[in-house]
Amino acid sequence: MPDARAFVRAKREGRAHTPEELREFIGAYAAGAVPDYQVSAWLMAAFLNGLDESETSALTAALIGSGRVFDWSGLGRPSADKHSTGGVGDKVSLVVAPLVASCGVLVPMVSGRGLGHTGGTLDKLESIPGFTTRLAPEAMRAQLDRVGVVMVGQGPDLAPADGLLYALRDVTATVECESFIVSSIVSKKVAEGAGAVVYDVKCGNGAFMTTREAAARLARRLVATTRSHGRSAAACVTDMSQPLGAACGNALEVGEAVEVLSGGGPTDVRDLALELAASMLALAGAEGSLADARARARRSHERGDARQKFLELVGAQGGDARAIERNALPRAPVVAEARARRNGFLAALDTRGLGELIAAIGGGRRAKEDRVDPRVGLVVRRRIGDLVAAGDTLAEVHLAAADPGAVRRAEDCFEIAEAAPAPPPLVIERFD
Amino acid sequence: MPDARAFVRAKREGRAHTPEELREFIGAYAAGAVPDYQVSAWLMAAFLNGLDESETSALTAALIGSGRVFDWSGLGRPSADKHSTGGVGDKVSLVVAPLVASCGVLVPMVSGRGLGHTGGTLDKLESIPGFTTRLAPEAMRAQLDRVGVVMVGQGPDLAPADGLLYALRDVTATVECESFIVSSIVSKKVAEGAGAVVYDVKCGNGAFMTTREAAARLARRLVATTRSHGRSAAACVTDMSQPLGAACGNALEVGEAVEVLSGGGPTDVRDLALELAASMLALAGAEGSLADARARARRSHERGDARQKFLELVGAQGGDARAIERNALPRAPVVAEARARRNGFLAALDTRGLGELIAAIGGGRRAKEDRVDPRVGLVVRRRIGDLVAAGDTLAEVHLAAADPGAVRRAEDCFEIAEAAPAPPPLVIERFD
Repeated sequence: MPDARAFVRAKREGRAHTPEELREFIGAYAAGAVPDYQVSAWLMAAFLNGLDESETSALTAALIGSGRVFDWSGLGRPSADKHSTGGVGDKVSLVVAPLVASCGVLVPMVSGRGLGHTGGTLDKLESIPGFTTRLAPEAMRAQLDRVGVVMVGQGPDLAPADGLLYALRDVTATVECESFIVSSIVSKKVAEGAGAVVYDVKCGNGAFMTTREAAARLARRLVATTRSHGRSAAACVTDMSQPLGAACGNALEVGEAVEVLSGGGPTDVRDLALELAASMLALAGAEGSLADARARARRSHERGDARQKFLELVGAQGGDARAIERNALPRAPVVAEARARRNGFLAALDTRGLGELIAAIGGGRRAKEDRVDPRVGLVVRRRIGDLVAAGDTLAEVHLAAADPGAVRRAEDCFEIAEAAPAPPPLVIERFD
Repeated sequence: MPDARAFVRAKREGRAHTPEELREFIGAYAAGAVPDYQVSAWLMAAFLNGLDESETSALTAALIGSGRVFDWSGLGRPSADKHSTGGVGDKVSLVVAPLVASCGVLVPMVSGRGLGHTGGTLDKLESIPGFTTRLAPEAMRAQLDRVGVVMVGQGPDLAPADGLLYALRDVTATVECESFIVSSIVSKKVAEGAGAVVYDVKCGNGAFMTTREAAARLARRLVATTRSHGRSAAACVTDMSQPLGAACGNALEVGEAVEVLSGGGPTDVRDLALELAASMLALAGAEGSLADARARARRSHERGDARQKFLELVGAQGGDARAIERNALPRAPVVAEARARRNGFLAALDTRGLGELIAAIGGGRRAKEDRVDPRVGLVVRRRIGDLVAAGDTLAEVHLAAADPGAVRRAEDCFEIAEAAPAPPPLVIERFD
């Protein structure tokens, strides 16, 4: 067993750990040989004094090494995945995963649940009646081979030390640390067996990273750490100064993703999905250039292959694909309208506030144990730069029961000004 | 229950806690409502981001408030205590407590055990056959009234949150934090009911504070925090660049303290004891000036009143006072000599190294659970500035069994040079 106190002291004094020390400490923690209270002191010391790139990479390796690592190379096709750092209305995974799979690249996607103001892919999928996000490793392999895509939660075998550490970070106010975020994300992506990973680093007032500089730094570290574990990686920093698309809330977002897969829906969701899919295809080597990969993704989308793959995926994981085709997902009983209070241009949205509102009306979690109501959410009808008149509908508020306070809270999140601001670019920066 | 996570986050972000927040957090911790892992994250955040004077005072109040506070005012005499921050050979409490009591000021002394390279008053006292350092509050009161002095350990009633917090600091590498040290020390002194407290802040390579600046800062904060709790306080920064007196080790130090009480013994022990006792008498209001207090302490020492009071104290707490009078304390079976390896002047001692050697040969603790052998230790025969010839005895090493390695280790701790250094002053600075 390592000397945990000496390890904690080293980080308290700002010294760097060796990879071997990190591996021992995390291994001993996962084995129950180091108590939570020593790990939490270390978490805070590392939060405040930092971990350098080599330590972050070693921590990632230690998290990966605490469980099993999937290997899909026996299936004879390249594999790729994408990961979003989280935002409001970000249903892009629902479009990208089947789109990439329909182009012949395996997508072994392991996702998370929503927490706080951000949504989670698992919650969205579970708004489809019957859909299960738990698959045993053998079932994952069989489905990947047959359908080309799985969308599941992190099973107990995958980087279990990451799960332990995340739970401890959550209660010790040490979540928002770049090195912890990087190692947690990358460890899951490497362990799930993806050969190439594209990161969508959200940036803006609805994201964890609110400045472009912070988002770009996180993007670079995600790419570097993933590469240091022998996987291809790229990243895009993309806008989260307003919700992505119109729908925010679990069933609402699935509905919008299906619209996009069917050729309609908001253009920002479609464009970002095509861009991320193209990055994945290029990175996985399925196409020789990003331009070819873009063309391939567009073709697959236009032909409806991606939509077909999504329905196949839903059916394979026990979901009611006909409910999707018939537009029969769960619906909220009350739909109220949040209206503009004055004339002008939509200048800004409190995107985080909208995300928190969704959690408050039951569509997200404030604590991990909370249950989620798949029906509730918002449909945002205006985008930054739009001209609005007093009384115009800014958003529909989908509620389990009438709630005028929630509608007022939604209205508070829209800032209307005299002058039209420049609409923000969707893709801010790429890291290839 | 307070929001522990928000509390931890505030300190992580370097914000100051309100007294109310600190009281709630510590109170909830002592009540078992906040788990160790959140407290240890907070300890590390406070270690790295600091607690200001007002927070330190509030933490002290919270520690005090977790238990009972003794009040001896009903006994009709002033009370005073002293506290040393710890060193090697520091047996001054054994002289000061009976000396002050013999001058009519109550001494309700609550002491600790040795840990690491420093000795502890309780361990020293327990080398007296039969001596008990555990007294119930009623027995403390009765003995204080009758004898005027008690020397006991921290019972479970006294600042219990301090005991919990200290144990957690010990395993999370957060011990050496000035605010934690101050609040831990002051909380015990206030809770034990002393009306006036004199701090002896040790400074030098055998102390926790190795520089004069650090020692002076700690001294000022101890005084300020004690005063903020309505008690009189003063502090001396005193030398710990060599052991205090000659004897280092539990029974050896009791023997030397008795020598000093009897009018002999090393002059540094005697002088420091007289100075600290005078400060206590003046601070408690028993004498109108420090000069009068010095004269009073000297008189009591010369007349043998202090020695008599010590024997009375030993008898009252179940100890064998005749063993002391007959010089029959436990003795080590082996006494070896550490000798000078060359001619020259004794230029420096590795005082901490000597303290660690005592722990290594069984006279101290490396972990709290260790048992202590009262017989072993060192008698240091030379002081800084002394002329020595090769082969001269530098120290006697008192051992449970022959151990040439220990003798060599002792010899390694003495640095002999060509030129005579200036001997360090005993009292470096006073804070009244």
